Amino acid sequence: MSDVKSDIEIARAASKRPILEIGSKLDIPQEHLLPYGHDKAKVSAEFIKSVADRADGNLILVTAVNPTPAGEGKTTTTVGLGDGLNAIGKKAMICIREASLGPNFGMKGGAAGGGYAQVVPMEDMNLHFTGDFHAITSAHSLLSAMIDNHIYWGNELEIDQRRISWRRVVDMNDRALRQITTSLGGVANGFPAEAGFDITVASEVMAILCLADDLADLQERLGNMIVAYRRDKSAVTCRDIKADGAMAVLLKDAIQPNLVQTLENNPAFVHGGPFANIAHGCNSVVATKTALKLADYVVTEAGFGADLGAEKFLNIKCRKAGLSPKAVVLVATVRALKMNGGVAKDALGTENVQAVKDGCANLGRHIENLKKFGVPVIVALNHFIKDTDAELQAAVDYARQAGAADALVARHWADGSKGITNVAEAVVKVCESGEANYKPLYPDEMSLFQKIETIAKEIYRADGVTADSKIRNQLKEWEEAGYGKLPVCMAKTQYSFSTDPSRRGAPTGFDIPIREVRISAGAGFIVVICGEVMTMPGLPRRPSAETIRLNEDGLIEGLF
Amino acid sequence: MSDVKSDIEIARAASKRPILEIGSKLDIPQEHLLPYGHDKAKVSAEFIKSVADRADGNLILVTAVNPTPAGEGKTTTTVGLGDGLNAIGKKAMICIREASLGPNFGMKGGAAGGGYAQVVPMEDMNLHFTGDFHAITSAHSLLSAMIDNHIYWGNELEIDQRRISWRRVVDMNDRALRQITTSLGGVANGFPAEAGFDITVASEVMAILCLADDLADLQERLGNMIVAYRRDKSAVTCRDIKADGAMAVLLKDAIQPNLVQTLENNPAFVHGGPFANIAHGCNSVVATKTALKLADYVVTEAGFGADLGAEKFLNIKCRKAGLSPKAVVLVATVRALKMNGGVAKDALGTENVQAVKDGCANLGRHIENLKKFGVPVIVALNHFIKDTDAELQAAVDYARQAGAADALVARHWADGSKGITNVAEAVVKVCESGEANYKPLYPDEMSLFQKIETIAKEIYRADGVTADSKIRNQLKEWEEAGYGKLPVCMAKTQYSFSTDPSRRGAPTGFDIPIREVRISAGAGFIVVICGEVMTMPGLPRRPSAETIRLNEDGLIEGLF
Repeated sequence: MSDVKSDIEIARAASKRPILEIGSKLDIPQEHLLPYGHDKAKVSAEFIKSVADRADGNLILVTAVNPTPAGEGKTTTTVGLGDGLNAIGKKAMICIREASLGPNFGMKGGAAGGGYAQVVPMEDMNLHFTGDFHAITSAHSLLSAMIDNHIYWGNELEIDQRRISWRRVVDMNDRALRQITTSLGGVANGFPAEAGFDITVASEVMAILCLADDLADLQERLGNMIVAYRRDKSAVTCRDIKADGAMAVLLKDAIQPNLVQTLENNPAFVHGGPFANIAHGCNSVVATKTALKLADYVVTEAGFGADLGAEKFLNIKCRKAGLSPKAVVLVATVRALKMNGGVAKDALGTENVQAVKDGCANLGRHIENLKKFGVPVIVALNHFIKDTDAELQAAVDYARQAGAADALVARHWADGSKGITNVAEAVVKVCESGEANYKPLYPDEMSLFQKIETIAKEIYRADGVTADSKIRNQLKEWEEAGYGKLPVCMAKTQYSFSTDPSRRGAPTGFDIPIREVRISAGAGFIVVICGEVMTMPGLPRRPSAETIRLNEDGLIEGLF
Repeated sequence: MSDVKSDIEIARAASKRPILEIGSKLDIPQEHLLPYGHDKAKVSAEFIKSVADRADGNLILVTAVNPTPAGEGKTTTTVGLGDGLNAIGKKAMICIREASLGPNFGMKGGAAGGGYAQVVPMEDMNLHFTGDFHAITSAHSLLSAMIDNHIYWGNELEIDQRRISWRRVVDMNDRALRQITTSLGGVANGFPAEAGFDITVASEVMAILCLADDLADLQERLGNMIVAYRRDKSAVTCRDIKADGAMAVLLKDAIQPNLVQTLENNPAFVHGGPFANIAHGCNSVVATKTALKLADYVVTEAGFGADLGAEKFLNIKCRKAGLSPKAVVLVATVRALKMNGGVAKDALGTENVQAVKDGCANLGRHIENLKKFGVPVIVALNHFIKDTDAELQAAVDYARQAGAADALVARHWADGSKGITNVAEAVVKVCESGEANYKPLYPDEMSLFQKIETIAKEIYRADGVTADSKIRNQLKEWEEAGYGKLPVCMAKTQYSFSTDPSRRGAPTGFDIPIREVRISAGAGFIVVICGEVMTMPGLPRRPSAETIRLNEDGLIEGLF
């Protein structure tokens, strides 16, 4: 038997404290915590309103180099850093995203962190949790039903049934539902039409829940969603369908942040989980803003690598929510750098300092990019057992030279908070220095196409952007319709700065081709699709569901 | 403004006690109550196991005459009787079904009871509640995805894709999904096929959740479900697909009963909600059995009128769960009796003693039927403001003469528990008399067709049952396959003893035509369809969703 415990073994051995006690660490009165079992709770809207005038704590974003199959440990570092800040005496909490239920039944489920830097209860968080995603599915499904029902009863709004842009959602990997025809079987079932399902996290309702300031703003944004077009191409909104009020009712609990705890009993908000390609990939604005009122240091993360996740966090979430991050922690591992330096996965076990140095080009470009937003960057090298001192030192030296405020090796996976106090101290130092001066990369007033070009050139380092006239005209039409001030949300591969996932490191000499543009008028961004985007995954040949079961002790097997 | 408060006004004015305090009335230790907010909780599996050896309390079924548009108040009487039993010093609780979310967005939502006999929190119970139905939807959807995925990857089980009997579900009224084609769009999306969605309450998973003894039995039954057939017509089960373990994991919390409270702060389990036509229409066995260990009197109800609901409660649920009811309370109203006596709805306001007497034929037949199960019947006349003394007295006289152990006028809607202590006293008297000697109407060993005939003749008073040879052969095939000992679950109109909804009162001279038979091999019954059965409702022209919203005070408007 191995000495190294699995994430789930560690999570199950955790000494969880009652959630009301965790809440009291943040001075949340018991009556304002709505418990879900003894280890999860939602924070009431009244309490959130009551702390609105407090000063904000320091916001720290954790992001990473481009992901590789070697793993980087972004969430693990987010959790570890939160614990590390608490360990050095700071009042700190973390904000991360919720997991989607469906994919757990395909591949084994994702933990919330790993090793001794995890958030618990891990199993609940990978299953129904507090029902937020189910509420989103319900709200989304209600709108779907109401659109077809409107047409069924006479179509007063004159919707062109060929131009319904609102797809259905379900929180399950079900490829058979990607493309369907509905309303077959005769008059009583409506007008036959093409339709399809995405997975719930791809719903615009999810993106809205994560960007709304409160329930009133949520309803306003839901109303703004474009669900279809008429023959004259004018838009029909969710408000026209009169679904926004009922959808807000269905989401009234889901918008409240979920409080859980780390293995070290520090508070964590786990709330919301939009895609990081067709949406902005961050936990909810409500959770982040509330956390900033309750803690002096709030550690959060954004999906995928810094080119996708951090860019959207900084250009979309911070801009829209009025957030001003004080530091960015850029996570890398020696293994990931070696893969970016051209090493194959099965050769990662051998020391290869040159490959680390080669792969650092990826790290270096992310450091440069992040500094363009006016926020200092600290590199955290998430330590793996087989890393050698020479490899780690090469990465640290490179990062410092490339402009990082600091670069440190973190051992939170094996050691919990005491393995990452060095990074915590560096974060505090940078926050206290007042060095940060956050600004988004482009102004609201820039044209939509220029915004795309700015990201492509400044972040991806592309030579240019290619798009046919249909796409350029669509962007212009949206500008004329009043959507020109929206930010753009780039959907491209997470594995490369380019649109070719095999081009690791810091590629140059490529264009970014735009395949398609979509509008999320409720969430408030233009989605720019630059590659295959899969919004409804399928199950693999041997889905993990086949082996998931409860054992004799009532414990779940096969989920992790 | 009216003096009479609406149900929702009364519910909102309720002085709810913390749910942990309600649990302590039943001596449930706090650590065994998993709270959902401060007014809902699930009871732990460990606690339920710990009370298994206790003696059972008295089980009382509340049922009703055939429903009419005038309303009968079955749930209201169930709740009122529970409060009434507590009011006369008995340790009593109630067990009722959960409401389906979807239909609330079509017509205004149903309360759990009415007037001063309600269960709260009413709004939560009509929305997501504790997430049980979402869990059922997830488990059902997982199996749907796994069936298509199995075929996609090579179809080892040799499923005949034309013979997939497993439909999909969603908890929303969405007629466009009744009949669809799936897997369009090419190779990556699977093999195009016909499919369709039902509403979640119609899922066999729902019926199973409500009939299972515990989580192990639940998984066993899930495994037994037939999902498709091969070309040789042999059955493919959920266990063959290997979905049963993961489905049980998804349902591990959903199977635990939900504790809430009445307006008078008495404990109530609200758990499960299967259809009362294609399924058995009762709350969960787990809830009922647990309640019998915790209280001396347990009041429960079954869907629709006694010909459908009580028949299934007695022939399916009690038989399978080993329950032995001590009394049946048969609810009627003067208004409903008048409609059964031929009065139109808009003439109900005028005194009409003869119409009451005429309509009593319906009441009388139900009394006779219920006594065939060996259980004494008490008639409760649920008082409405416009009822006259002469009308009430006519009904009381008739019921006593027709064989009811007692017949009483109950005023719980207006007066709460103190309006129904008379019925409570009568129930206690009957229970203490030891008069009850429950037995099902037919033995397990009877042939399936004879079981159908027995119900048709003994309960509905039909001359006979008609069915073509295809149906008779199907029943024989199931008997040969080992399913002959299952009970039958009749799906017919709730408005008449016959299959013609317009034939109120006590019709005679008709046959029961069987249109179709289906097997629910996991739930453990044969479904016999004798008329239109709608398993996916649509939304009306003006769905209530259009006016549902949160008002300035954060209260939900338009839901009730």
